[in-house]
Amino acid sequence: MAESAGVYCPLPSEQDNVEQAKGNPALDSSTFIPPAPLMSPSIIIEFCDRCRWLHRATWVSTELFLTFPPPVLKAISIIPLNSEETGGRFRVWLNLEGSPPQLMWDRKIEGGFPELKGLKQRIRDYVQPGKSLGHSDKKSE
Amino acid sequence: MAESAGVYCPLPSEQDNVEQAKGNPALDSSTFIPPAPLMSPSIIIEFCDRCRWLHRATWVSTELFLTFPPPVLKAISIIPLNSEETGGRFRVWLNLEGSPPQLMWDRKIEGGFPELKGLKQRIRDYVQPGKSLGHSDKKSE
Amino acid sequence: MAESAGVYCPLPSEQDNVEQAKGNPALDSSTFIPPAPLMSPSIIIEFCDRCRWLHRATWVSTELFLTFPPPVLKAISIIPLNSEETGGRFRVWLNLEGSPPQLMWDRKIEGGFPELKGLKQRIRDYVQPGKSLGHSDKKSE
Amino acid sequence: MAESAGVYCPLPSEQDNVEQAKGNPALDSSTFIPPAPLMSPSIIIEFCDRCRWLHRATWVSTELFLTFPPPVLKAISIIPLNSEETGGRFRVWLNLEGSPPQLMWDRKIEGGFPELKGLKQRIRDYVQPGKSLGHSDKKSE
Repeated sequence: MAESAGVYCPLPSEQDNVEQAKGNPALDSSTFIPPAPLMSPSIIIEFCDRCRWLHRATWVSTELFLTFPPPVLKAISIIPLNSEETGGRFRVWLNLEGSPPQLMWDRKIEGGFPELKGLKQRIRDYVQPGKSLGHSDKKSE
Repeated sequence: MAESAGVYCPLPSEQDNVEQAKGNPALDSSTFIPPAPLMSPSIIIEFCDRCRWLHRATWVSTELFLTFPPPVLKAISIIPLNSEETGGRFRVWLNLEGSPPQLMWDRKIEGGFPELKGLKQRIRDYVQPGKSLGHSDKKSE
Repeated sequence: MAESAGVYCPLPSEQDNVEQAKGNPALDSSTFIPPAPLMSPSIIIEFCDRCRWLHRATWVSTELFLTFPPPVLKAISIIPLNSEETGGRFRVWLNLEGSPPQLMWDRKIEGGFPELKGLKQRIRDYVQPGKSLGHSDKKSE
Repeated sequence: MAESAGVYCPLPSEQDNVEQAKGNPALDSSTFIPPAPLMSPSIIIEFCDRCRWLHRATWVSTELFLTFPPPVLKAISIIPLNSEETGGRFRVWLNLEGSPPQLMWDRKIEGGFPELKGLKQRIRDYVQPGKSLGHSDKKSE
């Protein structure tokens, strides 16, 4: 089924009186809990911003979220880099509880950008080992 | 000037011999340093995934990176939520060193989604106070 | 249900022999039919490229396709403009068979960018009048 | 230089009196000229929507616009397909004045998705033959 907007969620009623909002915890920001620093499992994408790879990184992020919707992946962080020594970098890390982030892709080691199918398979093998990714998928052995 | 791809960066030479790669730290993942857990300044976008707001969150992320390229913003994290009590949530947080993340936008408090100009002004006032955002901008006082 | 990749479609088998491909119409580009010039119903988004609204236009396009998947909308065209007299333009047109494109949104007339809910309602009233857009929707009368 | 928003364009002044708007051609939609049916040069991307390739198509579109900003490319149209016989399709067409659209990429013929560098080179050779695409580019001969 295709995505559609706003079907399931409580939306703030347009009839809500502003006065009623007072004392409503949903509208009192002092009660809001900021997100935790590094959720698990989560993905981190580092890339060379001089190379103009923001849109590639964003697209990879979109695809990973659609394949591994929450709570499978809890967060994706995008980190643009612009120093000389990070030139040409495109790395994808998987963060799992209890260990340092694990490298899923490095453009220089792999000799190119992640082809999505392969990247999804690697991540799947950690976060959702039983999941099929479709026709052309082969599970890890 | 428009963005263009790959103009500035060292790309791995296609002539590089695989043998030469051995002992090359750029190709030895054991030397790679994983990104720090919570960079500063950075942005965190939380949203209700049941409401299908992934693409809205991603678009906001793209716009913020283009307005505040690194090193002004060092990272943006996107956090989809799918429990009942986070229904209808769309929050933007700014993380600055030495303090907990500060709320820049909450859809329920503000009564709607961030209009980009306003959100950029709020973030600008923290991360790059002197920056003009264009014709229609007014600086904070 | 969330989107996922490649579940339904015939993918070219990796076992296909290149020889077998000869004489296969799926692989003979002389048999391919180019798309028609202006499909119906379709959307056209014109925008001022000097204003850097490409990503906004693209996001609107993504949202419209997710709300009105094919065959409801058959195509979306994005037209960046960069002359002085198109400065500040953001227009959304609906193309229906048998009539010239109809204006759904003009940023100067409306005094701002399309809030998605309103734009979707206007388009819905032409292309899929019975469709509910979710909780906060009100149908045209 | 990075993109930034709203620096160059005339934005509708917030002080504009609504009364003044009357008789202003910028606000009189009866004077608006709908876009032409098929601009040239332009790109058309057809894809199998059952395969969930909308975001891939959109990303390719974004990259092509950033590499070939207007007036080099005047428009990009995205056409999702959902019938059985278009399963697995991902085609990129170039439309040039005076000839039918020319095929730049077909996933089945090429055996996979366009790697951006190669697709940009093919399009460049038609629309902007002298343009360098960066370090790793080789011009057509």
